[in-house]
Amino acid sequence: MAKKIVIIGGVAAGPKSACRVKRLLPDAEVTIIDQDSLISYGGCGIPYYVSGDVSDEKELRNTSFHMTRDESFFQNAKGVNVRSNTRALAIDRKAKTVEVEDVRSGAKDTVPYDQLVLATGSRPNILPIPGVDLDGVFTISDLHKAIAIKERVARGEVGKTVVIGGGAIGIEMAEAFTDLWGLETTILEFMPQLLPRLVDRPFAKMLETHLVEKGVAVYTSESATAIEGDNGKVVRVVTPKRTLEADLVVMAVGVRARSELAREAGLAVSQMGNIMVNDRLQTSDPNIYAAGDCIEVKNLITGKGGIAPLGSLANREGRVVGDNLAGIPTTYKGWVGSFVMKAFERSIAATGISLETALAEGFDAAAVTTAQSDRAHFFPTQTVIPLRLVFDKSSRRVLGAQGFGPANDAVLARIDAAAGIIAKGGTIDDISQLEMAYAPPFATALDALNAAGNVADNLASGRLRYISIEDFLAWMDNFAGHPDWVALDIRHPKETAPFVEKFGDRWLSVPYIDIRDRYRELPKDKTMLIICDAGTRSYEIQVFLDSVGFANSLVLGGGFNIMRRLGVSWWPEA
Amino acid sequence: MAKKIVIIGGVAAGPKSACRVKRLLPDAEVTIIDQDSLISYGGCGIPYYVSGDVSDEKELRNTSFHMTRDESFFQNAKGVNVRSNTRALAIDRKAKTVEVEDVRSGAKDTVPYDQLVLATGSRPNILPIPGVDLDGVFTISDLHKAIAIKERVARGEVGKTVVIGGGAIGIEMAEAFTDLWGLETTILEFMPQLLPRLVDRPFAKMLETHLVEKGVAVYTSESATAIEGDNGKVVRVVTPKRTLEADLVVMAVGVRARSELAREAGLAVSQMGNIMVNDRLQTSDPNIYAAGDCIEVKNLITGKGGIAPLGSLANREGRVVGDNLAGIPTTYKGWVGSFVMKAFERSIAATGISLETALAEGFDAAAVTTAQSDRAHFFPTQTVIPLRLVFDKSSRRVLGAQGFGPANDAVLARIDAAAGIIAKGGTIDDISQLEMAYAPPFATALDALNAAGNVADNLASGRLRYISIEDFLAWMDNFAGHPDWVALDIRHPKETAPFVEKFGDRWLSVPYIDIRDRYRELPKDKTMLIICDAGTRSYEIQVFLDSVGFANSLVLGGGFNIMRRLGVSWWPEA
Repeated sequence: MAKKIVIIGGVAAGPKSACRVKRLLPDAEVTIIDQDSLISYGGCGIPYYVSGDVSDEKELRNTSFHMTRDESFFQNAKGVNVRSNTRALAIDRKAKTVEVEDVRSGAKDTVPYDQLVLATGSRPNILPIPGVDLDGVFTISDLHKAIAIKERVARGEVGKTVVIGGGAIGIEMAEAFTDLWGLETTILEFMPQLLPRLVDRPFAKMLETHLVEKGVAVYTSESATAIEGDNGKVVRVVTPKRTLEADLVVMAVGVRARSELAREAGLAVSQMGNIMVNDRLQTSDPNIYAAGDCIEVKNLITGKGGIAPLGSLANREGRVVGDNLAGIPTTYKGWVGSFVMKAFERSIAATGISLETALAEGFDAAAVTTAQSDRAHFFPTQTVIPLRLVFDKSSRRVLGAQGFGPANDAVLARIDAAAGIIAKGGTIDDISQLEMAYAPPFATALDALNAAGNVADNLASGRLRYISIEDFLAWMDNFAGHPDWVALDIRHPKETAPFVEKFGDRWLSVPYIDIRDRYRELPKDKTMLIICDAGTRSYEIQVFLDSVGFANSLVLGGGFNIMRRLGVSWWPEA
Repeated sequence: MAKKIVIIGGVAAGPKSACRVKRLLPDAEVTIIDQDSLISYGGCGIPYYVSGDVSDEKELRNTSFHMTRDESFFQNAKGVNVRSNTRALAIDRKAKTVEVEDVRSGAKDTVPYDQLVLATGSRPNILPIPGVDLDGVFTISDLHKAIAIKERVARGEVGKTVVIGGGAIGIEMAEAFTDLWGLETTILEFMPQLLPRLVDRPFAKMLETHLVEKGVAVYTSESATAIEGDNGKVVRVVTPKRTLEADLVVMAVGVRARSELAREAGLAVSQMGNIMVNDRLQTSDPNIYAAGDCIEVKNLITGKGGIAPLGSLANREGRVVGDNLAGIPTTYKGWVGSFVMKAFERSIAATGISLETALAEGFDAAAVTTAQSDRAHFFPTQTVIPLRLVFDKSSRRVLGAQGFGPANDAVLARIDAAAGIIAKGGTIDDISQLEMAYAPPFATALDALNAAGNVADNLASGRLRYISIEDFLAWMDNFAGHPDWVALDIRHPKETAPFVEKFGDRWLSVPYIDIRDRYRELPKDKTMLIICDAGTRSYEIQVFLDSVGFANSLVLGGGFNIMRRLGVSWWPEA
């Protein structure tokens, strides 16, 4: 008799494991069960469907060769049975059956399995505030919601939107509303920054500044306390600080695993509700596997488990399940946390953990921030790409990398390269010597990522003394906090003049090229914060000043290339 | 007394080691000696200067903050002495001095050193053919040559150019001549492909096809046998097959180390003339270091030494020398061979070694070729990026990666990510599970590089049977070579019809979606070459056919996405 494999869940991990095992065991009887009528769609494409970049929702369900991944496609092309509109109600592990219900007719039956895969995904969190059920309040949980949102917008029913949640999905939806549809859009994020936990504050702030430039209102450290309506339809969102009119509200405040079936079947589930699996993605019942948003995944840097709700991981995990169903002992050890997103004309990406997370996790962590060019400085399309490396000072292990740049693949290239090193437990030196491909249209001779490794080496080796971006910003807002600090601005006098004029004796200007002649003018009784555009010249000057007995300086990493992307209020008028 | 460090060579490795050691040992007396008047320029930018992308040669000598890296810059900003126009004649290792000559006045003196660095670079090879000294025949050896070429072109003196050598520099120069100046340009390459040794034939052929589309004439397997002139000025280039008119000839046929100084000083030099160094980049005299094009560098995959003439490596090596001069025991273990170039609207990149090299080196090597999208298939700017992974079948170690795509950073991102894995001796599985950052504007959920890893896994595990691109092309040119072969084209009938019409009973058409119903029509007495667009559907069909007793198929990796980029003569008319 053919082996019966049943897979609950028809998006990403489910279809991937189904198709993989069917290729490995062509004689197996493979069935996907999903309660939805639409299956196997690219959920990550929803913002691009709403924006209009993708014109038809079918494109999200198509293969690269333009066939729609529906029930008959799976049957004919893959030899996989799909029972859509079919809800799994319960698992009988002893009998090895799944009780299911047709969501249209209500008819029930039982489906036997030899091996079962839970790819039940996640559901969006709903804030415990009034008004979440009003018409016009959406989560981005499935394609039906996306279609409903786009129809409303396309019918001209929406003028103002509020996006609750400043994570990737919230920001992508805000871009879709603003950029293509010209809607007045506000993002509310209850944490003090966008993309909390994914990147550190300065990188989130660079992104926020760009969003604001593009017309999106962003309020951080501000939560929605109520959503109010009129005749059952949303009209405004209330926060402790303001009331925002809204015809449409998107709530994108994270997701949690769908694991009721697993829990009710007595499978091990974490306190947060994630299905526990071993590194072959077996649950506590060896005949039941799980993959995708619903499982607990170990972070390879912190060693801690949690939800890892990314389509890219769901696909990798699905393949691992397919292998194991067929007896190939492939393992999945965990995730690094690689991430990229586009927002208008910028990209932001990260891998590993942020400095904030690293410190919270007890690492002896530090970070360097650089602002080198993505291409040869003489190549016409070159631009600065701020990068951050997070590392452990004692072991020199690299813990994370972050990047911000134009909406092309420049930042992606550096983050993908770093991801491999980080996953392997690599050090600062591995980053310094990583052999990035070079030609002037693509990189600098010493790539921006290598340069970040070199700066990290200088910091970790005690050759570079740093002031953090946060400390510098705090001082700029309140000189009295550190009355003994003074800026030493080594940029060209034309660049420094407005700062000297505005900040008076807090701002010394001695050009880089003149320091060796003029260092005796500098104060010995102050801490000098050395400022240039990228941080590299500042380091040279610090080393020189140390050698002539002025060991009282700190370098601002990334320099004013970072500052001018932060939208600071103290920037002098041009 | 201050330690005296003397560096011979003022481009890339020389200035890098000088500035690094000066930062580490601010009290050291650091002197760069160079016979040229122009130093510290970005030599890799020469084609972009000639093309006009870079308007002034000074930009190639500028820092990112727009200062020219001349003698006074090094003195004032870096505290490094530069003696330009000064030729090093000999090294007296006992006395620890360098004898130098002012190239303008002829005056000689000796420069004492405590430690010496040889960064003497390379010189271009000159073919042993008549006419290489004619006016108008150039090598791309320094900035003066670049200026002279650009002046000639800008004055309108050049209508036709011949580039001898189909390596990266030759191709970049051909683009510069054709694209901006509209010159009639021919590339001659004596090997059977462009970019010999850097990429395998199919990838070189995709590039060649694009160059031809852009109006460059390319003749491979064809060498220049003579350059002929008129009144001392070049007028034509002769090959065994044709005579090419030319007002300007660029000879870009590789470089060799400049190591006379080292050899005459009794330092160990390889048979090929490369200066031998240990992994701290010390020569056979511990007081003398060497870096850049002039040294022997170990290839980390083959373990063999050779010249590695890349500006990116010169900079890395320069930093290692700077560290060691200052007593920091940084090492440089060797190179992987990462490489990228732009040619018109395409990029081509590679890391590690090619299949051809791997086989020649005795590896149990194989390669897979894929043709996946760079972005989500529904994202408007997506395009196919052919990738190749070269690996060892028994150890599963990845030996190399190649990519071809648009002139953005999409290919770069995959090659840089692979470079780190390859340098660390990683396997196919490391590539499969490499956590590439994902969002639809940047990648597919399972990245193209991961997909290549998966295909390699299938091949290495014996689950996939492949026909090589070369074997397929040979068969298309001569069906009689394998009378028992037949194409099984599973693309849409609209796509396959012209092929069926042209190739008759050599070309079977059964759509992918119909195979499960119609497989009984297929022949059991032929070898079926399964063809789709990317190779993935073909693999599915092979697995299915095997399971129903038709184990007589081979998959064409990368499918017609590769074929249509190869400019084949047998493509049916549209």
